[in-house]
Amino acid sequence: MSSNSIGQRYAFTSFGESHGKCIGSVIDGCPAGLELEEKDIQKMLDLRRPGQSIITTQRKEEDKVEIISGVFRGYTTGAPITMVIWNQDQRSHDYENLTLRPRPGHSDYPAHVKYDGFNDYRGGGRFSGRLTATFVMAGAIAKKLLSQTIRVDTYSYTCQVGKIKMNSHDIPKAENSIYSNEVRCPDTKMAEKMRAVILAAKRSGDSVGGVIESITTNLPVGLGEPIFGSLESDLSKALFSIPAVKGVEFGSGFYGSTLYGSQNNDEFITKNGKIVTRTNNAGGILGGLSTGMPLVLRVAFKPASSIAKKQRTVDIKTKRPVSLIVQGRHDPCVVPRAPPVVDSLVSIVLVDHALRAGFIPPVIR
Amino acid sequence: MSSNSIGQRYAFTSFGESHGKCIGSVIDGCPAGLELEEKDIQKMLDLRRPGQSIITTQRKEEDKVEIISGVFRGYTTGAPITMVIWNQDQRSHDYENLTLRPRPGHSDYPAHVKYDGFNDYRGGGRFSGRLTATFVMAGAIAKKLLSQTIRVDTYSYTCQVGKIKMNSHDIPKAENSIYSNEVRCPDTKMAEKMRAVILAAKRSGDSVGGVIESITTNLPVGLGEPIFGSLESDLSKALFSIPAVKGVEFGSGFYGSTLYGSQNNDEFITKNGKIVTRTNNAGGILGGLSTGMPLVLRVAFKPASSIAKKQRTVDIKTKRPVSLIVQGRHDPCVVPRAPPVVDSLVSIVLVDHALRAGFIPPVIR
Amino acid sequence: MSSNSIGQRYAFTSFGESHGKCIGSVIDGCPAGLELEEKDIQKMLDLRRPGQSIITTQRKEEDKVEIISGVFRGYTTGAPITMVIWNQDQRSHDYENLTLRPRPGHSDYPAHVKYDGFNDYRGGGRFSGRLTATFVMAGAIAKKLLSQTIRVDTYSYTCQVGKIKMNSHDIPKAENSIYSNEVRCPDTKMAEKMRAVILAAKRSGDSVGGVIESITTNLPVGLGEPIFGSLESDLSKALFSIPAVKGVEFGSGFYGSTLYGSQNNDEFITKNGKIVTRTNNAGGILGGLSTGMPLVLRVAFKPASSIAKKQRTVDIKTKRPVSLIVQGRHDPCVVPRAPPVVDSLVSIVLVDHALRAGFIPPVIR
Amino acid sequence: MSSNSIGQRYAFTSFGESHGKCIGSVIDGCPAGLELEEKDIQKMLDLRRPGQSIITTQRKEEDKVEIISGVFRGYTTGAPITMVIWNQDQRSHDYENLTLRPRPGHSDYPAHVKYDGFNDYRGGGRFSGRLTATFVMAGAIAKKLLSQTIRVDTYSYTCQVGKIKMNSHDIPKAENSIYSNEVRCPDTKMAEKMRAVILAAKRSGDSVGGVIESITTNLPVGLGEPIFGSLESDLSKALFSIPAVKGVEFGSGFYGSTLYGSQNNDEFITKNGKIVTRTNNAGGILGGLSTGMPLVLRVAFKPASSIAKKQRTVDIKTKRPVSLIVQGRHDPCVVPRAPPVVDSLVSIVLVDHALRAGFIPPVIR
Repeated sequence: MSSNSIGQRYAFTSFGESHGKCIGSVIDGCPAGLELEEKDIQKMLDLRRPGQSIITTQRKEEDKVEIISGVFRGYTTGAPITMVIWNQDQRSHDYENLTLRPRPGHSDYPAHVKYDGFNDYRGGGRFSGRLTATFVMAGAIAKKLLSQTIRVDTYSYTCQVGKIKMNSHDIPKAENSIYSNEVRCPDTKMAEKMRAVILAAKRSGDSVGGVIESITTNLPVGLGEPIFGSLESDLSKALFSIPAVKGVEFGSGFYGSTLYGSQNNDEFITKNGKIVTRTNNAGGILGGLSTGMPLVLRVAFKPASSIAKKQRTVDIKTKRPVSLIVQGRHDPCVVPRAPPVVDSLVSIVLVDHALRAGFIPPVIR
Repeated sequence: MSSNSIGQRYAFTSFGESHGKCIGSVIDGCPAGLELEEKDIQKMLDLRRPGQSIITTQRKEEDKVEIISGVFRGYTTGAPITMVIWNQDQRSHDYENLTLRPRPGHSDYPAHVKYDGFNDYRGGGRFSGRLTATFVMAGAIAKKLLSQTIRVDTYSYTCQVGKIKMNSHDIPKAENSIYSNEVRCPDTKMAEKMRAVILAAKRSGDSVGGVIESITTNLPVGLGEPIFGSLESDLSKALFSIPAVKGVEFGSGFYGSTLYGSQNNDEFITKNGKIVTRTNNAGGILGGLSTGMPLVLRVAFKPASSIAKKQRTVDIKTKRPVSLIVQGRHDPCVVPRAPPVVDSLVSIVLVDHALRAGFIPPVIR
Repeated sequence: MSSNSIGQRYAFTSFGESHGKCIGSVIDGCPAGLELEEKDIQKMLDLRRPGQSIITTQRKEEDKVEIISGVFRGYTTGAPITMVIWNQDQRSHDYENLTLRPRPGHSDYPAHVKYDGFNDYRGGGRFSGRLTATFVMAGAIAKKLLSQTIRVDTYSYTCQVGKIKMNSHDIPKAENSIYSNEVRCPDTKMAEKMRAVILAAKRSGDSVGGVIESITTNLPVGLGEPIFGSLESDLSKALFSIPAVKGVEFGSGFYGSTLYGSQNNDEFITKNGKIVTRTNNAGGILGGLSTGMPLVLRVAFKPASSIAKKQRTVDIKTKRPVSLIVQGRHDPCVVPRAPPVVDSLVSIVLVDHALRAGFIPPVIR
Repeated sequence: MSSNSIGQRYAFTSFGESHGKCIGSVIDGCPAGLELEEKDIQKMLDLRRPGQSIITTQRKEEDKVEIISGVFRGYTTGAPITMVIWNQDQRSHDYENLTLRPRPGHSDYPAHVKYDGFNDYRGGGRFSGRLTATFVMAGAIAKKLLSQTIRVDTYSYTCQVGKIKMNSHDIPKAENSIYSNEVRCPDTKMAEKMRAVILAAKRSGDSVGGVIESITTNLPVGLGEPIFGSLESDLSKALFSIPAVKGVEFGSGFYGSTLYGSQNNDEFITKNGKIVTRTNNAGGILGGLSTGMPLVLRVAFKPASSIAKKQRTVDIKTKRPVSLIVQGRHDPCVVPRAPPVVDSLVSIVLVDHALRAGFIPPVIR
């Protein structure tokens, strides 16, 4: 399988460039019989769209999805579903001067070497954060499939911006308040503080990092496969495809590595006739398989690399030092736009495993 | 591709069970012409072998590798290389009582549900840490290939046990002192403290978690592919196949998400006529591609689930609560045995990408 | 890998439906640096286009290709190349009455059962011969790559229509005269006879089958891989994806199975300092690997299923017998339009193997 | 996926060499809960075993299978099933002189070039017909799975040897008489004639080719997937992995290409309340999908390349002509040993598709 595809049964291929004609997604393996129209996808794309608030990039992009194959009379047909977003509002000239002066923290340098300069560097080309919209197109369908067939639901939210961190366990029904604020943090008090940190970074021409937490409820027991098909393996592979992601952890994660087994093990109990665990340090995964407890993971985003501050770099040809101020309208913090992206990738992986394990049939009747 | 295989060009399939006849590895795609004998692999297996010191499990297993295909007159042939370790010293009766009383923190419960009780539960069966020896068999060959053809070298070490943490940047030439102590920590002072933590956990019938750091030097620029073939995607997929791993991060990782872009970006400079970065918060990867700087990653291990302390669980059939004391000879801390496992998986992924990108040819002449 | 994709390194995904918005192709893994514009692809599409002569369907379709990703400033970038043909001139109402009355020889019946009626049945939908235009889009690039980098060339031609058969060995430089006639048979005398057979079939509302022969010259020795990656395995898998193909053979093929080893074996000789074989009953493949001799294969096409003659079928719902006259403008013989399709699939498979074996580098400089 | 593996859900990897330590098979994806013991596999291996009659090679090989992973207490566990046959009775010295004098019709020459002489050439190494025993190991399990879960059965038989051809339609219940004679032809009269042809070839130090026909009954409607996952695509890919196979056709195949549509189309009728076709020129496949009619295919085998007659070849190093008499005990006709091999590959492909389509569940309860 090629590097721009993921999934065995719900096989998703991403194509397109940031400032080319379009970006798009092909899904091969979506069951026939799912009711689907463009607005199902558009809704989720809108949550990721730039230009929505003062804390995100001011680029205005409609990001309007068009389904060009695989849907007939309002239902999926079992054939590949292809979706495109036609690009608009590119300001490619903003990037022209970057070709030989690699931006610190960007793919410019290794991409130039790898492709010997043939890569489309405009706006980051194939490496742009814009490509995460292709994940959302594929993810919106995956999310709908999971929800309609086995009532599995994923919700992701900002749980940290810079050094400001919410305590996720204090917020009951977090899923309902995520989109009540621009930061997409269900703890509205912490959201205010995070917003302030982002605005301060923006004012100083800087950017700031953060963390997304993602919860999936109602998973059946036994999703995932041993060894390289573990849920952690497949989820992390998907999540690290998001530009700017530099860490992924499940359940107690890195913190759990400081604990004793007697602290970190989750004891089994019976609740309403169902076997569950008292705690959930495993994040809903044991041996790579779902336990039936909520799937909990966290994704670390580095601060966006494109900053307005002057930075030092090197001219690739002359190898002489040069200084650089990155132009363009960039996100001071990419985290508030990332929850639908994380939702999408988690859903894409889970629907693939649900199809592999027979929890979702090849035709939805 | 099936869940027990990984890699496109250096395709590795793991088979076997902890207490079955054997465990084994098949590698499809290893170039012809590599000098290879069993002792090349045995050396690395010996570093992972149980029973080596007071801080690891007392199981004595020789873990002797036998090559049964793919090598002819001391050289690889281009055909699949198959290796097996014939199991010995199993004490399966230790595990008999666990079949219906799932051990907290183990795969017992979801595996039982997934396979409807048909899974080989002895010693964890397919989910056992013992299977990491199959990774080492495949990894030893990958490491030799990388070293001989493009002089890429990976070394991994314990950088944290419980709350005791070394500062990796204080240790020049860390690679030389890793195996100088039982903990496999190049900082010999911290190693002493870590050893004490492990022994304390052992004495109280408990276990403790920790972190492995891994460094790879001399990578060419441009290894890896965009989107789902990013080095981070493929490395994390491989690393999360290790039982007990619950977090993976690259470069500044989770800590980097607390920083500003102006702090985290690595400026480009020229050094000895080569373009490098002043700092390496990216951990040697930008846009999923290698930058030529050292690849730096960290892997979080939860404390081992098998502890001698009494724990509460549930009988799967009756759903009644029962208490459980896990028998057997277990590692109080799996981290000291994990460096060769991390080395192996990192090498397996890198050699696959080096073959895909043409840095290693299909025949070594 | 999903069923609508083929290839490991030159990974081609086909999408679209006969009477949907479009048909299209995504190619992941095409090397960067290949000069490419739409007319490179259009040229080959034009050879397959319907409506070109009296012996093909009278549907007029421009089949104009548009590249929507992966090409920048006239060169491939290493990113996925996506191409679409926007559909026109569909007459879907021609097909409406067929949904529940499966056409003999068509996919209608098993497709209806498989997808429970959700499949897009218009014009055969995903099963239409029209989808072979997506093969040509991917094949035109593969053919250009092979030609420019290692000077490998494929040419395919009609060698049989109904019972009329040319003797391929009588025609020197066959590749130059293929497109000199509507039948695409380099033997112009036989072409006349074949044309007459097709016209007779057309007049009687019938269709007729035939055979394509394909020759590839200048292949390096050792392309292909043992067992399931044999050239025969991968070529036949690709060729049997053409609707109407029911047989594939290499070299002496079925005829060779009537011979003795002493007749069929090709003795090795030296010619101009190169090791070759005196005869080529192997069709250029031994042990699944190219021998350096011309690759020779033949592809059997059944007579097109859509005929104007009255046929008997069954109503899927009532299971009552009904009679059926297939409307629409169909090819009385699909073979004359198939040579570029066979060229394409052969080139797609060969370029994949050439990339895997390192004969073509990841960037063309 | 690598070249020594096939299948998405029933993923089979073949390893080993003709004269190495062993040959073996790994199956990843076999459902848990299938009753399985070595004799299930041995039975089918015995049908392929050499040395059984005067018309096959006189090599005596027990070909005794050993299951070394994936079966526990008599049932499959869902983990990879690994099986090996330990090689015996090799006479490698028979082959020593062939390394630089490539045998006509063998893989010797392209394999030597591809692997630069590192390939294990003994007995053909990885290219030996002996490797088809690994297909039978994987096939025996596939056949049992298909039979037990959906009562699908495949039987293959010799239908042609040299120019002697049976008429398959004359033999009712052919499956019962296949193994009643050494030729494995259900038409016992023709079997006698075929036997005479083989013995004549043997006497003159020659070999002769032939054809296997394979029938599969009771397939559900809709198995297979459009385009590259068509049953014809996947079956032919598998079948062309058999050394000596040079042609594959389905239903009326090459003969069908001489017909008119009105002759070749199979009209639909209702029989016992089921929709079937009156004739079966499609061989049970339309649009790449099973129609519910018997799957019919034919496989052309070239005459075995190893003959005792003197042949001319070239010394690879000196490029001088040399003459060659192939030593060793070879089959004068490989066809009589091939029916279980064809059965196996057909079953492997069908079980994979049955798992993909959900006809066989991931656990057999």
